[in-house]
Amino acid sequence: MTDIQSALDLIGRGAEEIIKREELEARLKLGRPLRIKAGFDPTAPDLHIGHTVLLNKMRQFQDLGHQVIFLIGDFTGMIGDPTGKNVTRKPLSREDVEANAVTYTEQVFKVLDARHTEVRFNSEWFGVMSASDMIKLAGQHTVARMLERDDFSKRYAAQQSISIHEFLYPLVQGYDSVALRADVELGGTDQKFNLLMGRGLQEHYGQPPQVVLTMPLLEGLDGVAKMSKSLGNTIGINEPAIDIVTKTLKIGDELMWRWIELLSFDITLAEIETLKSDIASGQLNPRDLKLRLARELAARFHDAAAAEQAIAGWNAVVRGQGDTSQLPLSEIVVPAEGLRLAALLTASGLTTSNSEANRKLKESAVRIDAEVVVDGQRVFSAGFEGVIQVGKRNFSRVRLVAA
Amino acid sequence: MTDIQSALDLIGRGAEEIIKREELEARLKLGRPLRIKAGFDPTAPDLHIGHTVLLNKMRQFQDLGHQVIFLIGDFTGMIGDPTGKNVTRKPLSREDVEANAVTYTEQVFKVLDARHTEVRFNSEWFGVMSASDMIKLAGQHTVARMLERDDFSKRYAAQQSISIHEFLYPLVQGYDSVALRADVELGGTDQKFNLLMGRGLQEHYGQPPQVVLTMPLLEGLDGVAKMSKSLGNTIGINEPAIDIVTKTLKIGDELMWRWIELLSFDITLAEIETLKSDIASGQLNPRDLKLRLARELAARFHDAAAAEQAIAGWNAVVRGQGDTSQLPLSEIVVPAEGLRLAALLTASGLTTSNSEANRKLKESAVRIDAEVVVDGQRVFSAGFEGVIQVGKRNFSRVRLVAA
Repeated sequence: MTDIQSALDLIGRGAEEIIKREELEARLKLGRPLRIKAGFDPTAPDLHIGHTVLLNKMRQFQDLGHQVIFLIGDFTGMIGDPTGKNVTRKPLSREDVEANAVTYTEQVFKVLDARHTEVRFNSEWFGVMSASDMIKLAGQHTVARMLERDDFSKRYAAQQSISIHEFLYPLVQGYDSVALRADVELGGTDQKFNLLMGRGLQEHYGQPPQVVLTMPLLEGLDGVAKMSKSLGNTIGINEPAIDIVTKTLKIGDELMWRWIELLSFDITLAEIETLKSDIASGQLNPRDLKLRLARELAARFHDAAAAEQAIAGWNAVVRGQGDTSQLPLSEIVVPAEGLRLAALLTASGLTTSNSEANRKLKESAVRIDAEVVVDGQRVFSAGFEGVIQVGKRNFSRVRLVAA
Repeated sequence: MTDIQSALDLIGRGAEEIIKREELEARLKLGRPLRIKAGFDPTAPDLHIGHTVLLNKMRQFQDLGHQVIFLIGDFTGMIGDPTGKNVTRKPLSREDVEANAVTYTEQVFKVLDARHTEVRFNSEWFGVMSASDMIKLAGQHTVARMLERDDFSKRYAAQQSISIHEFLYPLVQGYDSVALRADVELGGTDQKFNLLMGRGLQEHYGQPPQVVLTMPLLEGLDGVAKMSKSLGNTIGINEPAIDIVTKTLKIGDELMWRWIELLSFDITLAEIETLKSDIASGQLNPRDLKLRLARELAARFHDAAAAEQAIAGWNAVVRGQGDTSQLPLSEIVVPAEGLRLAALLTASGLTTSNSEANRKLKESAVRIDAEVVVDGQRVFSAGFEGVIQVGKRNFSRVRLVAA
C-alpha cells in the first residue's frame, strides 16, 4: 500500500491531469507491469528538453517496473495530406520512417531504458486494415462530438476548411490503444481529446479503458512562451554540454522550480520542499541549484565527465572565474613560422573559415585567456598554450606543437 | 444534329434537372455508347412503379444505344450500421446480396434491356480497398461541405447524432463513378448531393465529370403523397395484371398526365399535346386514355395477352359491363355430390381457407355472375360454369367437372 502510494506520487509529479486517478490506483494494484503507451510523429525528430517532459514520465513508469510502448504513428505519416493543400506534409516512404525511427531512438534512449521499451509502428495493424474496417471504426464516433475538439470547433466557427480525413485521425490514434491493449496513455495537454478517444474505443472493443495522463507543455528559456524551436527558446538534447549548462544557468528563479519538477530525477519531491526553504532563508544560492540541475541535464544528454568539463568551462571561461587548467586540452600542429591568429581560430575549429575569423576579430568577439584580441595578423608559435574563445560559449584550450 | 436534339428531348423527358445540359450534349456528340450509371440498395427489393421512373430513363438511354450499369451498393450493405443503433440495418451476407440481386434482376429486366445492362457490385473495388485509400478518399471533401447536405444539416441543427461513417458513404457512392468511369449518373432528386460527389471525385482522379440527371419521385395513387409502400398508394410491379389495370383506372385526371410523362413509352411527347387538346375538346374520354396507359403498364409487367385479359376482366367483372365469355376459364374437379360454395371459393384459389370464405360470405363480398351470394351451404356440381368473385378485383371464371 505504501508502495502504491509512492508510485502514485511519482506518477502524479508534474502531471496536469489523470483520468481517472482511482482507475490508475486499481491498475497499479494488479501487480503486473502495466503497458504505458505514448505516440510520436514519424517525421524527422530533433528533440529539445521540452519533449523530454513526456519521456521523463515514461522513464518514471519504467523505474516503477512498467513496460513502455514508444509508438511511431507511421501509418498516417505515410498517407501525408490527401487534400494536397499542406505541402509540408508530404507522404513519408517506408525508408523515411525507418531512418527517422533510428534518429528517434538514438535520442530517446538518452532518457528511456531501452530494455523496457517496445518501439512499435501503427502501420503494423493499420497497414493490413481494410476500407470496410475503417468505416466501422468511423461509426464509433459522431460528427458533433468530433467538432467539440478545440481546434476543430475553432476552425469550423472561423469557416476554415476541415477535411473529413482529419476526423479519422483521432480514431486512428484511439484504435492504436486497442491494438496495443494500453493500460495508460501519456500525452501533452493538447492531446487530451485524442487520448480520451482511446478510452471510448477500448470499451467498444471489450477492453477496460486506458488511464489517460496528460503532462504540461514546458516553458522555454524565457519562462513565458512554451518551448519551441521556432521561438528559439529551446535547449536541444543534442546541443554541446557547455550550451546546456550555460543556458540552464540563465533561466529565472521561478522557471527553475518548474524545470526541476518536470526535468529532474535526482531532486525528489520531498527535497524540493527543503530546497525551497533553504533558498527562502538565504542558506542556498539559486545559482547553485541551477548548477545542480544543469549538471544533471548535461550528464543525461552526454555523460558525467562531459557535464563536469562543461561546468568547469562555464566557471573558468564563460563566468571568467576559476582554473582553466582543468579544461580538456587540444594539441594543434603548427609550422615552424607559426600561425596567424585568424588561421589559428579556424585550425582550432572555432571558426569555419579565415574570413569568418577576421569578422569575429573585427567584432571584438575573440579572446585569448579572457583578453579581447583584435589583431588577426598576430602570430602564434609552437609552445603557446591558452584558452582561445570566440563569443561567449565557443572556446577551446589549446597547445601548439611543432610539425 | 437532329438525332442529338431528339435524343436530348427523350433524355430530358420528365427529368427534374440535368447538370450540365451542355456537357450531356457534348457527350452525346462523341458518337460512342455512353456509360449510364444508376445505383441501387442491396436490400431485398420489392419494386413498385414509382421505382420504374428511373428504370424507364435507363431504358430510354438503352434505346438510344447507350450502355446501362445497374450498380448494386453491396459494399456498404455488408457493413450494415456500425453504430449498432439501427437494428433494421443488419449487415448483409454475401449470400443475401446475391439472392437479392437475383430478385432485383428478375424485376428490373421487365423494363431494362438485359443485353445492354451491366450488373455490377461495388464490393468489386471497395472490397479490396485499404484503410489507407479510404482515408485518402475522405481527404477529398470537407466537413462543412458534407454538412450542407439537406438531411445532415437538419439533423445537425436538431442535435441528432450523425456518425462519422455516414460522411464516408456519399464519398463511396461518388467513388463508384470513378471506378465505373460513368458518363452519366441517374438518381432521384433526393440523391442530387451524392450524385454531385461523383463529379468532384472524377475530376480529382483525372476523369471528365459525369453528367448528373435527376428524376422526380412519382406521386402515388392518391396523387398527393410520393408513392411509397408504407402509405399503401403503390402499384407493385409483381401485382396481378387486373390490379395494375384497376388501380391505374382509378387515378385522377391530373395525375394521369404525370404518369404518362414518367411511365409511358408508347405515348410520345408530341402525342401528349394532341391528346391534351382532344380531351379539352371532348373528343377523347380520359377513361380511354387511362385504359391505354393501364394496358401498357400491365403488358410491361406481364405480357400483352395478360394485359388484354385484365382489361376484359375489368370491363366484364369490375365494371360489370361486357362479355365474361372472353375471360380465361379454369376447370375445377368436383366430387359427385358437388362442392359447397365456401369449399369452392377455396378450391378456386379465391380464399385461402373455408373460414376466410365464410367470413367473406358474411360480409356480402362474394358474387356469382355479378350477384351477391351469402349462403355458404349452397352446393355447386359438375356442369356449373360462371364467374365467382371475392371483393372487387379477385375473381375467376370457372367450370366444374366431374371427378
